[in-house]
Amino acid sequence: MSSPGGRRVGRPRAVERVGWGVDPRGELLGAAAELFTVKGYAATSTRAVAERAGMRQATMYHYVSGKEELLVALLESTVAPSLSYARALLGEEGRGARERLWELCRADVEVLCGGEFNLGGLYLLPEVRGEGFAGFRAAREELKGAYRELVGEAAGLEGGELELRTDLVFGLIEGVILVRRDAPGRAVSEFARATADAALRIAGV
Amino acid sequence: MSSPGGRRVGRPRAVERVGWGVDPRGELLGAAAELFTVKGYAATSTRAVAERAGMRQATMYHYVSGKEELLVALLESTVAPSLSYARALLGEEGRGARERLWELCRADVEVLCGGEFNLGGLYLLPEVRGEGFAGFRAAREELKGAYRELVGEAAGLEGGELELRTDLVFGLIEGVILVRRDAPGRAVSEFARATADAALRIAGV
Repeated sequence: MSSPGGRRVGRPRAVERVGWGVDPRGELLGAAAELFTVKGYAATSTRAVAERAGMRQATMYHYVSGKEELLVALLESTVAPSLSYARALLGEEGRGARERLWELCRADVEVLCGGEFNLGGLYLLPEVRGEGFAGFRAAREELKGAYRELVGEAAGLEGGELELRTDLVFGLIEGVILVRRDAPGRAVSEFARATADAALRIAGV
Repeated sequence: MSSPGGRRVGRPRAVERVGWGVDPRGELLGAAAELFTVKGYAATSTRAVAERAGMRQATMYHYVSGKEELLVALLESTVAPSLSYARALLGEEGRGARERLWELCRADVEVLCGGEFNLGGLYLLPEVRGEGFAGFRAAREELKGAYRELVGEAAGLEGGELELRTDLVFGLIEGVILVRRDAPGRAVSEFARATADAALRIAGV
């Protein structure tokens, strides 16, 4: 079998499937995204990731230090876009908190449901409690803090009640990680908007 | 260090921590619950489970066929109580659908947040897609079907809109698996009631 454009034949390169970019590190991330979610993190060797990305294990170590660095990067990719959007939304004075909360929820669901593989499913790995994942956990905490601020402002809540509502809203949003397994074919943008509507109802605004 | 009542010294037996009963199978389930959630499923050997339960690996095989059977049993334990309660609620003619939906949500959250270890975190293991887990997946589907029926009756919905609302409600409930990591000390019954309130708001009843 030959491929168009003179690319090598056989299994498509990881990058063509998940869009991590065309650099070697991107190929490794794409391969890791597939193997960690389909086969499991503990069950995947660094060698398997290298092979799936079409390179030798020795070459792989030029680009990443190992499996953990890939997992950290994949986890951060599920939080980073929503976190920078949240920072921008918190700084916006022109729009009300209700509207900004809705927008954050919608965008976050798009990120969590985007991509070919359910990377959010990796949140529950025991490894994520380790030291190497402090940066990811801090980013997730900051994102949750942005939710807290917007829920508090939109609903006029504070203290324990604010904490509870924030947990429920954040739980609904992250809960899409569990939902998307059941309905993989659904249009993401419609689902994201419906989830944002539901989040406002939970927040009580 | 000696222990009261003449029990052997050292680490307490698994059963004393998670209440799976005093039989050997219960001890194995307790040990597996801890190791699978704290160390990870793939990273835990059957031998490690046997040792943690205080028996030899050869003895273990008198009670269970291996690691997968333990995982199946643990997963089923997160669904079975809610499923039998759901069946009872569906058969109740006296109470309205709204009240029964609230009650199912509350009870389900209590199950998912109950126990020392976050067994729901095992839902996202790639292994759960395998053939040995068909019974668990069917039970979870039936439970979701009960939610669907109650949401439909309570909110007067059907078709795609009912499917969407059911996914959001079910996602909120299962989402507590992700929330409970952040607030492990919270009183479960209060959180369960607040989550059930939120579920009704999402269902639109």
